Amino acid sequence: MEAELIAIGSELLGRDKIDTNSLYLTEALSRLGIQVVRKSVVGDDPLRLKDAFLSAIARSDLVVSTGGLGPTRDDITRDMLAEALGLSMRLDPEILEGLRQRYLDRGTEFQENSTKQAYVVNGAESIPNGPGAAPGTYLEKDGTVIVLLPGVPREMRHMMDHFVLDRLKEQWDFPVPYSISMNFGGIPESVIDQRLRKFDFSNQELEFAILASLRRVQVVLTGMNRDKVEDMAAAVKAEFPEGFYSEGDRFLEEIVLEQLIKAGKTVSVAESCTGGLLGKTLTDIPGSSSAFLGGFVVYQNDAKSRLLGVPEDMLASKGAVSREVADWMSNGIRGAFESDYGIAITGVAGPDSSEQKPAGLVFVSVTDGRERVGREFHFAGSREMVREQSVTAALNMIRILISKDEAGKKGVSNG
Amino acid sequence: MEAELIAIGSELLGRDKIDTNSLYLTEALSRLGIQVVRKSVVGDDPLRLKDAFLSAIARSDLVVSTGGLGPTRDDITRDMLAEALGLSMRLDPEILEGLRQRYLDRGTEFQENSTKQAYVVNGAESIPNGPGAAPGTYLEKDGTVIVLLPGVPREMRHMMDHFVLDRLKEQWDFPVPYSISMNFGGIPESVIDQRLRKFDFSNQELEFAILASLRRVQVVLTGMNRDKVEDMAAAVKAEFPEGFYSEGDRFLEEIVLEQLIKAGKTVSVAESCTGGLLGKTLTDIPGSSSAFLGGFVVYQNDAKSRLLGVPEDMLASKGAVSREVADWMSNGIRGAFESDYGIAITGVAGPDSSEQKPAGLVFVSVTDGRERVGREFHFAGSREMVREQSVTAALNMIRILISKDEAGKKGVSNG
Repeated sequence: MEAELIAIGSELLGRDKIDTNSLYLTEALSRLGIQVVRKSVVGDDPLRLKDAFLSAIARSDLVVSTGGLGPTRDDITRDMLAEALGLSMRLDPEILEGLRQRYLDRGTEFQENSTKQAYVVNGAESIPNGPGAAPGTYLEKDGTVIVLLPGVPREMRHMMDHFVLDRLKEQWDFPVPYSISMNFGGIPESVIDQRLRKFDFSNQELEFAILASLRRVQVVLTGMNRDKVEDMAAAVKAEFPEGFYSEGDRFLEEIVLEQLIKAGKTVSVAESCTGGLLGKTLTDIPGSSSAFLGGFVVYQNDAKSRLLGVPEDMLASKGAVSREVADWMSNGIRGAFESDYGIAITGVAGPDSSEQKPAGLVFVSVTDGRERVGREFHFAGSREMVREQSVTAALNMIRILISKDEAGKKGVSNG
Repeated sequence: MEAELIAIGSELLGRDKIDTNSLYLTEALSRLGIQVVRKSVVGDDPLRLKDAFLSAIARSDLVVSTGGLGPTRDDITRDMLAEALGLSMRLDPEILEGLRQRYLDRGTEFQENSTKQAYVVNGAESIPNGPGAAPGTYLEKDGTVIVLLPGVPREMRHMMDHFVLDRLKEQWDFPVPYSISMNFGGIPESVIDQRLRKFDFSNQELEFAILASLRRVQVVLTGMNRDKVEDMAAAVKAEFPEGFYSEGDRFLEEIVLEQLIKAGKTVSVAESCTGGLLGKTLTDIPGSSSAFLGGFVVYQNDAKSRLLGVPEDMLASKGAVSREVADWMSNGIRGAFESDYGIAITGVAGPDSSEQKPAGLVFVSVTDGRERVGREFHFAGSREMVREQSVTAALNMIRILISKDEAGKKGVSNG
């Protein structure tokens, strides 16, 4: 089942507004196994709008539009669909009465231009609008379902949740595919891709996708047979026992904070090239204050030695971007905040490089006070990309260290 | 002149990623008087991609695509355009050599799949990619200009600014409207809008737009008569002498760092609710290390008193989120880093509120050692929005303080 989305409204073609309704629609439809294969944005232009409807209807099983259902002159979606399909429209007295009542309830005068919202395309059902005025439209035509929704996100969601999704389920009695998405840290996309090639996904009737960003690599398995999806997901996770960290849409910082809170432990961070991004990322999560104590941004050698106790001669001999300095920093920050764990990042975010220290060279060190783990990275990309990758790497390293500590504790208490 | 944009990539059809390149493209093209009349998103699917190109080319004067120019199997944009138009491709040895050199420079091995990036559609020009690898494509075919750009925003912008806009100007010798965009800090969009209503823009044949984000309010004036645009821009700036801070695409953090570097001064930051976002924002700018010394993220009362010298009894009586604590923090951080300026932010980012301290309540304090300026804010919106607005407010306050200090110095030396 393939769907196409059309966002309607000239304001969505401007320089400061973007259609975001499509994210919700994509998500909601995917739960029914309906894949969005194309999205378009068109203005309030009769010819372009009709053209957009006609070509979408010709191509897809389902066409969902948002916007253009209001009372103003710009709002032409309903009319243009009717015109495009050569259908007439009828005034629905019940809808009109409802609109009049709405005005009455609000103590405002009925606006005559609102009458146009009471017209229904012949052959279509009208979709009640819970929170707003404009009704939606649900129409089946030559095997394609066409749904017109308002552009106001709240109203659009209401219609999806209370009408459209149920109707689609009835309309198409198809089995809904089962999907598992798994998040991996510390392993490049290409390595995951390579290592997973040995699995014959298509032979198991499974669809396999890798979605990579600077923040994570996500592997998504989808199939009609739930057991097959689950078995394969287990096999994929087993390939990367240290790399797998969560299912679904949960990011690494959430997992790390959850680990810490569960273990009753705290963390502090010392950042050089990331300039506060690691602290920012951890504190993106509400409730982070119960495990995150704080951090130092130490952009200068002087601050590294004075605030974190990095020996000046080490800074001079090894340079601020070195494994040794990272280790001293993670140690120093743990002491400064008296936290259980310390994380340190020092590196060259770029764009400028020096001969010995190229842009992208980053050292991360994590410590629990007994053990200290340091790693050297060579990240590619822009300043922003190097910084994001550094934070992801640091979060992944502390995740692994906390896991080990907690597993060790369990091992002891069980033994 | 009408343009159509096509964003390419299956990830843009998912539930968590949206095309935002189109905002920049729309803005840049509008400066040439080119209007974007349609936007589409298609996945990495050969048939749909070819169909999207063919129908866009048939309809529009200009078609700009973003994405799908990389080295992986998914990246098929160039090939599909060639196939759609029945054009062959040629391997460009110069581009290939450039790609090899790029790998050499980074000390990594050349990946054979990168070779595909050296293929050029016959009849097209290759657009150099400044910051990245993948070259773009500029092709004229039957009166339509087709431009293929990378999906990476920085690379896309680079090609637009350094190649595409100039070439379009040459190609179509139409009068180009003149435009000035002005950035304002510390003044809500609604206030700017209200105050500017007294100007009769349309009577001056000027177009006026306000673009507001959490980071800035931008006023854009556009018209065919350069003098009229400049006169009106001067009048608009004069309305908000403290609020105006830059023209064009320069953000507040760039302006602040520039002020500091010019004045030979340094700054350090103390952050509570922003958790590192202020430091991160300042260090987004390459070269920030010459003025930004570092910062403390102090998420707990204990750290605020121990590291920044905030008196414990004040934390107890006034609470960590208070004007007084913000003042102590800005003072304390200036001392800890021995910087010329200190900035402090303390507040409730949310989503949780307490009765006395609702989410969105934020105190910012800035100091130069002699003068100290504190302000109380009540920001609306999500945790992320509150944090972004806090950082913007803090940057704006330090900008004004530095301006005053420098103006004062000048006054003295001139007097």
